Amino acid sequence: MSLLITNIGELTTHDPELGTLHDAAIVVGDTVRWAGPAAKAPDADRVIDARGAAVIPGFVDSHAHLVFAGDRAPEFAARMAGEPYTGGGIRTTMAATRAASDETLRANVERLVQESLRQGTTTMEIKSGYGLNVPDEARSLRIAAEFTTETTYLGAHVTPPGIEPDDYVRLVTGEMLDHCAAHAKWVDVFCERGAFDVDQARAVLTAGIARGLQPRIHANQLTEGGGIRLAVELGCASADHCTHLSASDVDALAGSDTVATLLPGAEFSTRSPYPDARTLLDAGATVALATDCNPGSSYTSSMSFCLALAVREMRMTPAEALWAATAGGARALRRPDIGHLGVGARADLVILDAPSAVHLAYRPGVPLAHTVLHKGVPQ
Amino acid sequence: MSLLITNIGELTTHDPELGTLHDAAIVVGDTVRWAGPAAKAPDADRVIDARGAAVIPGFVDSHAHLVFAGDRAPEFAARMAGEPYTGGGIRTTMAATRAASDETLRANVERLVQESLRQGTTTMEIKSGYGLNVPDEARSLRIAAEFTTETTYLGAHVTPPGIEPDDYVRLVTGEMLDHCAAHAKWVDVFCERGAFDVDQARAVLTAGIARGLQPRIHANQLTEGGGIRLAVELGCASADHCTHLSASDVDALAGSDTVATLLPGAEFSTRSPYPDARTLLDAGATVALATDCNPGSSYTSSMSFCLALAVREMRMTPAEALWAATAGGARALRRPDIGHLGVGARADLVILDAPSAVHLAYRPGVPLAHTVLHKGVPQ
Ligand SMILES: [Zn+2]
Ligand SMILES: [Zn+2]
Repeated sequence: MSLLITNIGELTTHDPELGTLHDAAIVVGDTVRWAGPAAKAPDADRVIDARGAAVIPGFVDSHAHLVFAGDRAPEFAARMAGEPYTGGGIRTTMAATRAASDETLRANVERLVQESLRQGTTTMEIKSGYGLNVPDEARSLRIAAEFTTETTYLGAHVTPPGIEPDDYVRLVTGEMLDHCAAHAKWVDVFCERGAFDVDQARAVLTAGIARGLQPRIHANQLTEGGGIRLAVELGCASADHCTHLSASDVDALAGSDTVATLLPGAEFSTRSPYPDARTLLDAGATVALATDCNPGSSYTSSMSFCLALAVREMRMTPAEALWAATAGGARALRRPDIGHLGVGARADLVILDAPSAVHLAYRPGVPLAHTVLHKGVPQ
Repeated sequence: MSLLITNIGELTTHDPELGTLHDAAIVVGDTVRWAGPAAKAPDADRVIDARGAAVIPGFVDSHAHLVFAGDRAPEFAARMAGEPYTGGGIRTTMAATRAASDETLRANVERLVQESLRQGTTTMEIKSGYGLNVPDEARSLRIAAEFTTETTYLGAHVTPPGIEPDDYVRLVTGEMLDHCAAHAKWVDVFCERGAFDVDQARAVLTAGIARGLQPRIHANQLTEGGGIRLAVELGCASADHCTHLSASDVDALAGSDTVATLLPGAEFSTRSPYPDARTLLDAGATVALATDCNPGSSYTSSMSFCLALAVREMRMTPAEALWAATAGGARALRRPDIGHLGVGARADLVILDAPSAVHLAYRPGVPLAHTVLHKGVPQ
């Protein structure tokens, strides 16, 4: 079964040879089989006429916390009225998550994954981190694994009430890891004042690596701590947030394979200053954009919203922001098969309600995903 | 034919007697017939189960420039890379608009009205202002009138090339007005340095008033000129933008029936400072929110995006922002029949994909309009 999409006004492939094509076409099965000028397109079993619309790779949302129950709308409203964000509300969600049935948690993940897919997100990373005990972290990951291969063990989100931080780190690196490792691809830690310090974070990531998990990290969201340098030291695929960076942090990222994943939805919803994407890009660091979708600090699932913020607030060009929201996310997940539309890539793409991908930033807030293909199948 | 919507988790009516109801229901024909506790709802011909979702009045977008051809994505990208917004690009759109067929212009308006409706906007004001000669201003208004009763004659958008400003004002207040007055409810002028000064703006609005049009004005977008004081002097229904306000401007608005319509999409897309909504509200002015949807300075059609900006950037509460985007817009259009869900109001409402209207700001960029009713009819 093959599908030809033709009359594409602008086809962004992120493939070094193909580049961005105009008057283009693409032929897909579950992967991309061919892309090039519309006039030279081969035949296919089915045809979609894009009528001049732009086509982009599906968004790769490499940072999302979807396994939770409840929401925190009142906390959001209070914060907008002037309360600072401290991360303390994570414990509110922990209580609701522990109390929820598997069905409730699964329905919440499914709702958000479907909502994201409708908006053009064809790959999502999903973290645990609201169970914060052995059974609830393990079931969070089991449920996440029903929806994605990009599952992340974030037992070290915060220390829950009733246990000392060092004892909790021993649990996270011991018994909890024993129960979670089989369900996760990644290990993550919230390295931040009020959460876990650099030594605790190193212990968490090192223990995960020893069990075959790949490391990633929440670093430098609220303060300029040592998280970035730890990320580079351990070869993390990604350091996420990067809101407060020293010059040596920027150099460390630029000289490494660690992606700087920026989450401007969090800065939007906590009314914080935005990370300095321009400095990172100009230094040569690889930048990704993701939603940080979670009920506390960033309850958006919209990658195009984050892309518009990146252009407006972080001075990324529309093309840089699109790359970061697709190919950048793929790098942050070490997935060469997604985030681009080169031949052989997974056939994840979005036909936009727009003649150019610039419209994703030019038309902020407007749902522009017209048709979403996931593994070649129109959703 | 009557329709009962029941199991409403939160029903925002903006009606002084009904207020905001929980576990509520509403019965509509083409207008609201009844609203109250779900347990007391009368029977109806059809039933929709809202399953705990929030219901709000349809958005009233009281400021939109939809009659145009082409777009200005390259200008947007250049501006984001550092060029200032001067309004000069209006002439680019003028040329494309004059060259376009009626069918092209009509299709563009229809596309944007439908896109807005899907996002919950049930009333739109539509301005002329890209024709800038007698035949093209008149046809812009004829086309606008096919889609809304809230048509606005904005011949005085900018002075087109090839004519002196004072000669153009004579045209706008003379022959052009002769051809446009029958198709418009409102007269508007862009009172701004580089567009029309206060005396020119007064001439435009006064001429329109003499022909039975009601006045509104683009005031104080780029500079602290005299537009606000002129708006109050002439009893304009609304002064739009209000980005640069003196203390006496704030006092003038607070002491008048002129609504301050804020257009944060324009500040977002031109990377400008936001208007000071907090000062206006605290002084007692009536505030509306609208999109300013246009291809140059604000190409969003999303009222919920503007609402999220109002909360994040302008320190409006979620409730104030929702009021401004519905009831505020209705005031700005002097339309007592919309913007609220009191008995007798037009049955324009949105069932959200959310348990509370706070989610409109809490979940920025996410399309939350689940079901939109326009004059009682699900769209
Ligand atoms: Zn996170
Ligand atoms: Zn305007």
